[in-house]
Amino acid sequence: MSESQFIIKPRWLVTMDEGPQVREQHAILVDAGKIKAIVPKSDIPDWAVDWPVVDCSQHVVMPGLINLHTHSSMNLLKGYADDYALMPWLNEHIWPAEKRWVSPAFVQDGSLLACAEMLAGGITTFNDMYFFPQATIEAAKRTGMRAHIGLTIMEFPSNYAATASEYIRLGTEVRDQYKSESSISFSFAPHAPYTVSDQTFTDVVTLAEQLNLGIHTHLHETQAEIAQSQEQFGVRPLQRLQALGVIGPSTVLAHGVHLEKYEQETLATLGAHIAHCPSSNLKLASGIAPVASALRSGINIGLGTDGAASNNRLDLWQEMRTAALLAKVSAQQAEAVPAYQALQMATINGATALGLQAQIGSISVGKQADLIAVRLDELNSLPCFDPISHLVYVASREQVTHTWVNGQLRYQRLPDGQPQFAGIETEALRSIALQWQLKMQQPAD
Amino acid sequence: MSESQFIIKPRWLVTMDEGPQVREQHAILVDAGKIKAIVPKSDIPDWAVDWPVVDCSQHVVMPGLINLHTHSSMNLLKGYADDYALMPWLNEHIWPAEKRWVSPAFVQDGSLLACAEMLAGGITTFNDMYFFPQATIEAAKRTGMRAHIGLTIMEFPSNYAATASEYIRLGTEVRDQYKSESSISFSFAPHAPYTVSDQTFTDVVTLAEQLNLGIHTHLHETQAEIAQSQEQFGVRPLQRLQALGVIGPSTVLAHGVHLEKYEQETLATLGAHIAHCPSSNLKLASGIAPVASALRSGINIGLGTDGAASNNRLDLWQEMRTAALLAKVSAQQAEAVPAYQALQMATINGATALGLQAQIGSISVGKQADLIAVRLDELNSLPCFDPISHLVYVASREQVTHTWVNGQLRYQRLPDGQPQFAGIETEALRSIALQWQLKMQQPAD
Repeated sequence: MSESQFIIKPRWLVTMDEGPQVREQHAILVDAGKIKAIVPKSDIPDWAVDWPVVDCSQHVVMPGLINLHTHSSMNLLKGYADDYALMPWLNEHIWPAEKRWVSPAFVQDGSLLACAEMLAGGITTFNDMYFFPQATIEAAKRTGMRAHIGLTIMEFPSNYAATASEYIRLGTEVRDQYKSESSISFSFAPHAPYTVSDQTFTDVVTLAEQLNLGIHTHLHETQAEIAQSQEQFGVRPLQRLQALGVIGPSTVLAHGVHLEKYEQETLATLGAHIAHCPSSNLKLASGIAPVASALRSGINIGLGTDGAASNNRLDLWQEMRTAALLAKVSAQQAEAVPAYQALQMATINGATALGLQAQIGSISVGKQADLIAVRLDELNSLPCFDPISHLVYVASREQVTHTWVNGQLRYQRLPDGQPQFAGIETEALRSIALQWQLKMQQPAD
Repeated sequence: MSESQFIIKPRWLVTMDEGPQVREQHAILVDAGKIKAIVPKSDIPDWAVDWPVVDCSQHVVMPGLINLHTHSSMNLLKGYADDYALMPWLNEHIWPAEKRWVSPAFVQDGSLLACAEMLAGGITTFNDMYFFPQATIEAAKRTGMRAHIGLTIMEFPSNYAATASEYIRLGTEVRDQYKSESSISFSFAPHAPYTVSDQTFTDVVTLAEQLNLGIHTHLHETQAEIAQSQEQFGVRPLQRLQALGVIGPSTVLAHGVHLEKYEQETLATLGAHIAHCPSSNLKLASGIAPVASALRSGINIGLGTDGAASNNRLDLWQEMRTAALLAKVSAQQAEAVPAYQALQMATINGATALGLQAQIGSISVGKQADLIAVRLDELNSLPCFDPISHLVYVASREQVTHTWVNGQLRYQRLPDGQPQFAGIETEALRSIALQWQLKMQQPAD
């Protein structure tokens, strides 16, 4: 399904490397998984004239999208429980379902479905946090996605581990097992301030430094989290985590919904990153993150879908659009988060947050060829005065026709409209989903 | 492309007529444009056993969606200017473009494109407001959409009319010309409190009573509108319009973003309807409408896309999802506007607002067969524990496979994924859009 050397000829090229401009009449040369050159279409070098050409004459070609916060295997819990407040949702629905169902097979199958959904929607990298991370890694390898795997740690027992030290031990073993995989990277993922003790955070910080890993955690998702911290620890969660040494340039904080201006400045100074998850924050009624203000403070902000149980789409086009629209209304300023800034959040900002900005996030010579092609000749996209605007405000994920990771074609929408994945048959994926659906619809004993 | 008698056999039937339940194993019998019967699949009556069957074995069949507020021909201005505050957006971009381009041909072509986009996204009825309404009617007739046409009136001259009385005269003539069309209905559309004088509102109210027409206007879209009214008239726009007799059970108010609780109660008491346009309200930074509270007050609320210049999709799936999510966060309550209520807003509530609830808005014996089929076997929609949840939180408009209006198949997504419209070739639509794009990209003299 893939050649090692090829040329992509797009109608429009959006590199995310040179500001909100769109190049026309250019070709991308891909060699051995990397971007070898970007040249005028009329000026293909002699050594590449025989390379096969992928014609994207009605498409934007741009960097693959980066999903900066998800729990991929929760794809199997998509629509399992909706329209509940956060605590009954967790206590009465999600946690009991996880207790009943979560296993390596659940995680691998759920992650496979999530990887397929993400690849078909132009996502080439995801930043995960869940139990049984080796199962998610196997799903990523099978589908060919780039994965940044959070090694989950909490104080509470789950089907995966019993104690914080067991979570840490299991996570470290998984990292050791897969550390030579070039498309898999890791961080420690102490779940949240309300599920992880001071001692465990301290241990994680030490270990992360020793192993040169980043940290991925939830922070300031709800007002209740902040109130609980003030009651239990006398301070807001950010202040506590800062004192414990958790917050730094390798830290990705999911949500950051409730951040005072001084806290935004603290995060900017310390160089921590935010994974903004607008749909999930709305659906769980968590709040609206102060994105325009936080960007002005200088914080690097990427975009996440969160898990499919609280979204219910792993769709970064939806998140780009929602992030841009929501920022405007909450800043009371229609100029806030213009289309190009939303694209940055979904690409280069995500790469930077994961420390992968030298490898991915923009179309630059020498970077990995994580690329997508997006058709803009669908009726809904016509007329088109500005491809950047259309990518954010008009396009659907269904317009993604090609997804390459490391220069390998991992997803293609065939001319008959059917999806095709490199690592797995579509029918096999459908069958996996339906088997779990049937199983999970059985009443508990 | 269409038979006059046929049977639809869906996997799931959502009638919007019997609460949030989903019927399985039922068939819909359509005869001469109307819903003749709903029967168990195993119990097709003798007189219908030979009728052709449309197999929707992986689909929800539900009522067509109703777009309660749009300016359809502005489809040609989609993405023409984004990320500007409302006043510079109007003054420097939209109004100059309208002055340069708006003509009967512009309106007819833009409306054709909009009708195609809406039909392909499962919208069967739209409530329009724009210049040259006869051109929009012709587009609706050609594509077979049901249209409720607002006869636009304002004090300001446009390419269409010079004075309020000329707008009224032209609108009344159009209504007289088309009043026998069964799929076209009308209301007067005095544009907004800030563009229409007291005298003109009074004239419109009188005329609307004489002709038994409703009224469609913008109301309380922005804080600036309210401040301006308080300065100019000493009262908020609602109070002014109420005093002028504009607000009643045949009145559709677009936006209603800024409504105090007592104003919500006034609207509920007077029986006026709101067309909630969440994407547009976010994009122009107008604000977040108090939808959960307004629904509790008893106001009937439908959903609108607004025009494509401020959305930029005519996509009621997007609006349903955004309406549900936004209501939760603004009410700080995840239970607010659950999925079924969002579906009601997009169907029966819209029908009620237009006074068409006896004809459309639910699948009920005797109503017109305005129906859509939505595939839920796409990978992204699996697993599926609750079709109602998936329709609102998961489905894309691309999952709509059939759109019937008056029992006529007006849109079909062919097995090869290509769109097919009954009244016009897809290539002709594409060519219309590209011609306007080229023309509008020419610099002004």
